[in-house]
Amino acid sequence: MKEYFVLTVQPFNKKIKVIKETDILSALIQGNIFITSICGGKGICGKCKVKILNGDFYSEATEKITEEEKEKNIYLACRTKVLGNLEIEILPETIIPEKLFEKGKEFERKKYDFKELFKHSPFIKKIFLKLPHPSFDDTLSDYERLLRSLKKIENKKDFTIDLPNLRKLPNLLRKSLWEITVSFINGERINEIINVEQGDTSNKNYGIAVDVGTTTISASLVDLNTGEILKTEITFNKQASFGDDIISRIVFAEKKDGLEKLHNVVIETINELILNLSESCNIFPNDITCVVISGNMTMVHLLLKINPSFLRKEPYIPVANIFPNFKCADVGIKINSNGTLSVVPGGYPYVGGDITSGIIVSGIYKEKELSLFVDIGTNGEIVVGNKDFLVCCSASAGPCFEGSGVKNGVRAIKGAIQKVKINNNNVYYETIGNEKPIGICGSGYIELLCELFKNGIINRSGVFITKNNRIIEEYGMKEFIVSQKSNGENIVITQADIDNLIRAKGAIYSAISTILKTLGIKFEDIKNFYIAGGFGSHIDVEKSIEIGLFPNLPIERFKFLGNTSLIGAEEYILSEDFRNLSKEIIKKLTYIDLSRSPIYMEEYLKSLFIPHTDF
Amino acid sequence: MKEYFVLTVQPFNKKIKVIKETDILSALIQGNIFITSICGGKGICGKCKVKILNGDFYSEATEKITEEEKEKNIYLACRTKVLGNLEIEILPETIIPEKLFEKGKEFERKKYDFKELFKHSPFIKKIFLKLPHPSFDDTLSDYERLLRSLKKIENKKDFTIDLPNLRKLPNLLRKSLWEITVSFINGERINEIINVEQGDTSNKNYGIAVDVGTTTISASLVDLNTGEILKTEITFNKQASFGDDIISRIVFAEKKDGLEKLHNVVIETINELILNLSESCNIFPNDITCVVISGNMTMVHLLLKINPSFLRKEPYIPVANIFPNFKCADVGIKINSNGTLSVVPGGYPYVGGDITSGIIVSGIYKEKELSLFVDIGTNGEIVVGNKDFLVCCSASAGPCFEGSGVKNGVRAIKGAIQKVKINNNNVYYETIGNEKPIGICGSGYIELLCELFKNGIINRSGVFITKNNRIIEEYGMKEFIVSQKSNGENIVITQADIDNLIRAKGAIYSAISTILKTLGIKFEDIKNFYIAGGFGSHIDVEKSIEIGLFPNLPIERFKFLGNTSLIGAEEYILSEDFRNLSKEIIKKLTYIDLSRSPIYMEEYLKSLFIPHTDF
Repeated sequence: MKEYFVLTVQPFNKKIKVIKETDILSALIQGNIFITSICGGKGICGKCKVKILNGDFYSEATEKITEEEKEKNIYLACRTKVLGNLEIEILPETIIPEKLFEKGKEFERKKYDFKELFKHSPFIKKIFLKLPHPSFDDTLSDYERLLRSLKKIENKKDFTIDLPNLRKLPNLLRKSLWEITVSFINGERINEIINVEQGDTSNKNYGIAVDVGTTTISASLVDLNTGEILKTEITFNKQASFGDDIISRIVFAEKKDGLEKLHNVVIETINELILNLSESCNIFPNDITCVVISGNMTMVHLLLKINPSFLRKEPYIPVANIFPNFKCADVGIKINSNGTLSVVPGGYPYVGGDITSGIIVSGIYKEKELSLFVDIGTNGEIVVGNKDFLVCCSASAGPCFEGSGVKNGVRAIKGAIQKVKINNNNVYYETIGNEKPIGICGSGYIELLCELFKNGIINRSGVFITKNNRIIEEYGMKEFIVSQKSNGENIVITQADIDNLIRAKGAIYSAISTILKTLGIKFEDIKNFYIAGGFGSHIDVEKSIEIGLFPNLPIERFKFLGNTSLIGAEEYILSEDFRNLSKEIIKKLTYIDLSRSPIYMEEYLKSLFIPHTDF
Repeated sequence: MKEYFVLTVQPFNKKIKVIKETDILSALIQGNIFITSICGGKGICGKCKVKILNGDFYSEATEKITEEEKEKNIYLACRTKVLGNLEIEILPETIIPEKLFEKGKEFERKKYDFKELFKHSPFIKKIFLKLPHPSFDDTLSDYERLLRSLKKIENKKDFTIDLPNLRKLPNLLRKSLWEITVSFINGERINEIINVEQGDTSNKNYGIAVDVGTTTISASLVDLNTGEILKTEITFNKQASFGDDIISRIVFAEKKDGLEKLHNVVIETINELILNLSESCNIFPNDITCVVISGNMTMVHLLLKINPSFLRKEPYIPVANIFPNFKCADVGIKINSNGTLSVVPGGYPYVGGDITSGIIVSGIYKEKELSLFVDIGTNGEIVVGNKDFLVCCSASAGPCFEGSGVKNGVRAIKGAIQKVKINNNNVYYETIGNEKPIGICGSGYIELLCELFKNGIINRSGVFITKNNRIIEEYGMKEFIVSQKSNGENIVITQADIDNLIRAKGAIYSAISTILKTLGIKFEDIKNFYIAGGFGSHIDVEKSIEIGLFPNLPIERFKFLGNTSLIGAEEYILSEDFRNLSKEIIKKLTYIDLSRSPIYMEEYLKSLFIPHTDF
């Protein structure tokens, strides 16, 4: 007999029934509470801290918990097992919030107007048809009658229909007095009829464009008739509870039921976004006819519940680059039960549909002059090219720009320190939402690194070189105190954090320098330096140049594009031109595998300084 | 609480658990025992007779049961309710047998050789592929890798794949060391990959061709690689328990759960045929990749569980003429779980895919001279034409040629009288299988009618005109005694039977004369008179001319084709040429609606004589 206990989780007062000896991290996931865990429950990252209020438990010894924390009854959730009824409290900085802080105008899409470039031709079309009633002079079958009228309006040759829709046709046609609305996949060749509805519903045709990132998921509700983006919502990818980066997700997927769990969680996240979007716009999910996914290859594999294992094993092979259309219902996405799922095609295992989107949205594929596109997330993808060629590579920046793998790192949520200025040993900072500080987010770390260097607190190698009342030592590791949390705990940047950040910025910079050197292109030949990604939108370019994340180009060449993956998904759902172009782009795109590049290691080593050794 | 009783059915000693007050016909169907019922359980046809051995029951009074029968405890199954545990016996002439009597050489297909005409190109192709292993120099995704190799062998542009097959791809490819067999729908445009298997299974690729008739279902197991027809089996359509002709089936389908029941029964019948065929040929159902259906429109609708109701309501509209491909699993047909179902397209509500098959198999569509094609079943379909035009019509002959709706009518089963000669009031006859006679089948009735007329026993109107010890009267109705059953009961043809048969042959003849007159064609211009259908294969042409079923043409112009619907399904599954031709044929085919023809009624009235009034 299995023994069950109740885990009560504060501050939500949520009760979860768990089997004896379940670890708290697993129990929380079971109860749909998602907290940060970089390593996915291996006890390595030390992120999944919870406070035990009372009850029976057993916790493994770990150096990730300080003596101070122990005194406050703080333990690692993944290393602590439930031995009786237990009450715990979630720490605010560990929780994966439902919604991201509103990112302001960077996420506004108004600056993009693709109407001239991409003809409006939505992925799913709805056409209202008044069919002529059958008579002895016109005895065409129900289906051929529908097709005859449809082909008069839609100049397409071939349509097809599935059995459930065919089965409902005879009664529906007569009940609706031969006035129906037909939804079909608006393709080049065979156009699949996905739904037939009574009466005229053609004015209600919506789609969902989704950017599935490793850390965040963004979705837009799109009016497929007008092309209007009705609303966008952003949330964290709850898969973060199973590991912070792509590799740890794939490793988790290789465990028993791992793929199933990762798949379910991302689908759940997308369904919540769809529900929020449709509710707030007063739209029935039934009127949403399609979902388009733009994301990196691993995210796409997990979403489709396709084994991603060979993406991380040499020679790094995805299961597919160009995916056929699927039924949303077959992966659990809840829109119209006949709704269709499409995926923006990706070029390479580590340069997925999100980058295809970015290439098209940035327009580098059609410019005469050379441009560089960089999407900085947990991975950094870089594309260099113009209308004649496109070359890409991918560098693993690690999650520290996303606020992970660094001691007081947090995501870009309320209370995150995002701007820093140091003057005479005084630290001035701004937090998101002007809330009390809870930690430091990626853009904050870039500014902090820059300020520490400019104020002579660290040297070119990132080593603390002054003595200073803000520099303390914990377990033999130097830390610089930035601020205090409301509970009086210090918010610090440690020597290890600095090393981490230098490696991260070095990975991006050396990827850029490697790809350019390989192509024989000088930095100054890059006329446009496009920066995409949620993190990218918040960083200070000058400070990024100063720490050596970006090359030293005239400031006006840097352009922030926002979430080009999401914008690409929106355009993909709206225009056949975009859909066709996305397939052409991946044919044109060449990949440079940095791990096999003869010069990458040298470039990388040169970049591990502030700013670097390229002057 | 529902009260249950046991119905024991002899001679099978089968026990069926039934709810109190269930009628015996329903109980038998529930127990998978199918007996003849023309009216589908309305108490009208009087066919579903059973013998009660012992137990509690209530039976409605009915004139369909004679006093003699009452004494023998014979009742109508549909009018008799179970009130306690009950034991009954099925009468041999009512049971729908599992297998038809082997019909001999008419069903041999050897005389047809379409190899010259239709290039071998099976509906499903299986291709064995040795994929190059991925390497850093060849990092194509699994799916695109498969496609690259496939396209080298198959000169086709577009393929697609479904999610379940895509999901199994990564592990399967590696487990099989990149040696796989791909099955795909061998179409013109988009070729759907339906299955991917480990290793080389390309030599095991089988299909099932099915002729679904109102009365009988025939199926052939086809080797898709060699084109060989391995085996053919024929069985009765168990739907006969729900009504004998198309209209009563449609009426039954309109009842609650009626469509479901009719659908289930025909699928069950097909699955039994598939199982028998695969077992007797030592083939795994998993290696059967497709099923092709040729049948009349009503049968196709019922098989696909599509509402057939509007086929019988003016202006007679089918749900579709050309059906897309479906998955066998979606209609319950048990072959490979990814197997595909295709339907031979039909031209008109009462001229279905079985006739499309017949037109192609007979070859009338490509001949210079005029031909006539007639498929005689419960309905008689007639096509007239040549390489320039094709005109068709359909006449309801009624089920009497199938042995239904006539007093001692039986199907073409063992013991059925099929040949008759009368001389000096002696009746000489032959039964199928030389068994003791149990009744008269369609071909027997034609000979009997002819002999009665030639011997002056009936006049031109079919009325008994002599007195004769073989002519007796029952309930005021004259009957002619043909023979005795083994139990001593008479086997007779009644005045009503004769009237019925004259109406049936008149319906066919007048349909032929109407279509020819409408087209301004003389009988003698018909150079080939093709007769298709199981019943058609057994009839004596001279006697058919003598009674006026067929026009008086030189005997050598009549050609028996056998089951052209089945042969068509076999060719459809084997050749893309045939599949394409079938779509062209239905575009060329014109329909004459006899019920709206200004001359049909006149022609019909003229045909209600022996032979008719056209000399």
